[in-house]
Amino acid sequence: MRDVAVVGVGMTKFGKFLERSLKDLAGEAVRGALESAGIDKSRIEVAVVGNATAGLITGQEMIRGQVVLRELGIGGIPVINTENACASSSTAFHLGWLYVASGLYDVALVVGMEKLTHEDKRRSFQAIGAAVDVEWAQQVAARAREARKAEEERGPSFQEGAGEKRSMFMDFYAVWARRYMERSGATKEDFARVAAKNLYHGSLNPKAQYGGEYTIEDILNAPLVVEPLTRPMCSPISDGAAAAILVPASRAREFTSKPVFVRASVLVSGRDRGQDEPGVTEEAARLAYERAGVGPKELDVLEVHDASAPAELIIYEELGLCGQGEGPALIRSGHTRLGGRQPVNTSGGLIAKGHPIGATGVAQACEIFWQLRGEAGDRQVEGAKVGLTENGGGMIRGEAAALAVHIFSV
Amino acid sequence: MRDVAVVGVGMTKFGKFLERSLKDLAGEAVRGALESAGIDKSRIEVAVVGNATAGLITGQEMIRGQVVLRELGIGGIPVINTENACASSSTAFHLGWLYVASGLYDVALVVGMEKLTHEDKRRSFQAIGAAVDVEWAQQVAARAREARKAEEERGPSFQEGAGEKRSMFMDFYAVWARRYMERSGATKEDFARVAAKNLYHGSLNPKAQYGGEYTIEDILNAPLVVEPLTRPMCSPISDGAAAAILVPASRAREFTSKPVFVRASVLVSGRDRGQDEPGVTEEAARLAYERAGVGPKELDVLEVHDASAPAELIIYEELGLCGQGEGPALIRSGHTRLGGRQPVNTSGGLIAKGHPIGATGVAQACEIFWQLRGEAGDRQVEGAKVGLTENGGGMIRGEAAALAVHIFSV
Repeated sequence: MRDVAVVGVGMTKFGKFLERSLKDLAGEAVRGALESAGIDKSRIEVAVVGNATAGLITGQEMIRGQVVLRELGIGGIPVINTENACASSSTAFHLGWLYVASGLYDVALVVGMEKLTHEDKRRSFQAIGAAVDVEWAQQVAARAREARKAEEERGPSFQEGAGEKRSMFMDFYAVWARRYMERSGATKEDFARVAAKNLYHGSLNPKAQYGGEYTIEDILNAPLVVEPLTRPMCSPISDGAAAAILVPASRAREFTSKPVFVRASVLVSGRDRGQDEPGVTEEAARLAYERAGVGPKELDVLEVHDASAPAELIIYEELGLCGQGEGPALIRSGHTRLGGRQPVNTSGGLIAKGHPIGATGVAQACEIFWQLRGEAGDRQVEGAKVGLTENGGGMIRGEAAALAVHIFSV
Repeated sequence: MRDVAVVGVGMTKFGKFLERSLKDLAGEAVRGALESAGIDKSRIEVAVVGNATAGLITGQEMIRGQVVLRELGIGGIPVINTENACASSSTAFHLGWLYVASGLYDVALVVGMEKLTHEDKRRSFQAIGAAVDVEWAQQVAARAREARKAEEERGPSFQEGAGEKRSMFMDFYAVWARRYMERSGATKEDFARVAAKNLYHGSLNPKAQYGGEYTIEDILNAPLVVEPLTRPMCSPISDGAAAAILVPASRAREFTSKPVFVRASVLVSGRDRGQDEPGVTEEAARLAYERAGVGPKELDVLEVHDASAPAELIIYEELGLCGQGEGPALIRSGHTRLGGRQPVNTSGGLIAKGHPIGATGVAQACEIFWQLRGEAGDRQVEGAKVGLTENGGGMIRGEAAALAVHIFSV
């Protein structure tokens, strides 16, 4: 298989844009990527489009990619529509990489796009709730309503409000956070540290939905979503789109003097495991390190799936940035903050940049692209040469249904 | 890139199975494919799942593949969910082929699955209606309601009933049928001949939804759907699933003594064209013939997208089975009927076998697999060595949003 390079990216600002259509958002991202790569749209040979909720939010259940691309005058080429919940567009990126790596096509466009806001706010939360086995979720919810037993006995709590006043996923994250506190000694303050770091990073990113300098107390005193998570510890409802252009590494210099190389593109899914077997993120990271020939210590900058603040600490451990139970010490040390040795989520991450779920994967790649090219402005990691993205999607039996890890270098 | 072979297939009977779940249907197809390939599920290295309407029919908007595969104990591997309307699973097949052809994985499972029946029959038609630009469709419908002008002036008619009492697509097909009658001299009797042929073929296929020996008069006297289409000229609402196992051609004999080789896997989409430029089907066929190194005259058996009977005649011309305007003569001659030189839709096609839209592409591949291995029972085409599948999906600006052509040989 051939080596692959990213030669252009584009993305919208993330935020709540009730008045903007998916065509409008995706159009801006695609035009940005074409401009960044310095090519005309006629050069695109294949397009892979990731989206998760258009069917539920806009009614465009099918051929979502074709609908937005034809609006831009892009047609004739193969268009793949792919969905993997919050990992929809890292899956699109992976398929774009595969098309180029295989030798079948030379110029691939990958797009992640999501319009998640809806006039009826409950609709957004309900849409996200489709990222589980819905038959199972209905059964769990019915049992929870009937028996009112302690949530730990049957997994997620589905307390009043789950799936309507907030994403059902925050109830999952709350359970995992409490378990993580028990096994690692992490405190609510540690989760607040993650949120404060990412909001600070977001304040340096013009495309981020939120950002600012907050104290630990500010975060802890914010409204509670579900114990132990306060609102700034949770990724928001967002709209946005991101796009990238992939070509063979051997041809990259035809497009740009500063290509970013894809060193590994790994996608896995959850499975039934024994107690001591590695989880889905560890498995994806292991494969990615092996394929890229780099280890966690060599990473200069990372974008990871901080859908909630505790998740980021767990991911530190799963990616091998630190040992088991050492996540709290790592965040306290400043190691993952801008200025530290391995900054994580310099874009603001899902918490501050925003989380338009089907756009997140490609948006992570955009941030790494800018960082490795030295184009990240006020949030630049000096001398960054190697970057990693980690993006999870959906949930079945307590594990991510899809987990993608990509490693990039210059 | 490597050559790829199909070493096992499985499919359910197609029909209306209100009581069966998507998990149940997909499970039967996947187990059938594994049994056919003689392998355990643990051998699968990647899975690509095509589906179009689960979000609208069952509420499973996301991670549809993971949900059905975990039920079968399949996890850990990459799972790609893909949608391209009625071409969803030929797109899945194409991606499975790409994974193996690229060298990334050696054993790919591809699945097409659809549960289209719903207690509220209108829901099924509305679901199919999402395979266009829905924003555009709403505007067209609004204009049609307001102005009540002649349908030809603005394309499809959207007469009373479209999208509720029947799929909106039958209104498109009716317009195309009338245009085709004008340019080729085709008659309603010719369309009835297609339906009668496919229903006869369906009567020989135990997995077909419908079948029987009907006269031209039977077909013409059936209830009208929309002029000139009577009910047996239109593909029905169906449920079903199909699956296939793909491996490198070089390893095929490890799995079976009768591999079927994929000679070409082509996917394209509609684009804006001049009056004399080839359409999307001609373009896909041209690329497929070129990549496979075979021409239309060498095909022994074909499965094509007869969503309506007139479409089959148009496809004869687009695939080069005959010249322009010669579709009516070809069907009258018996050339495409079992016993003729190039039987088309021996399975019964979409009209008789049924059209569970996201399952259709892989189901077409199943029929060609059985035909080329000499396992098609009463509908066997003697000595068939080369087969083709053609599968279209969705519609934008009067053309298929996705069009896949595959060529197979033994």
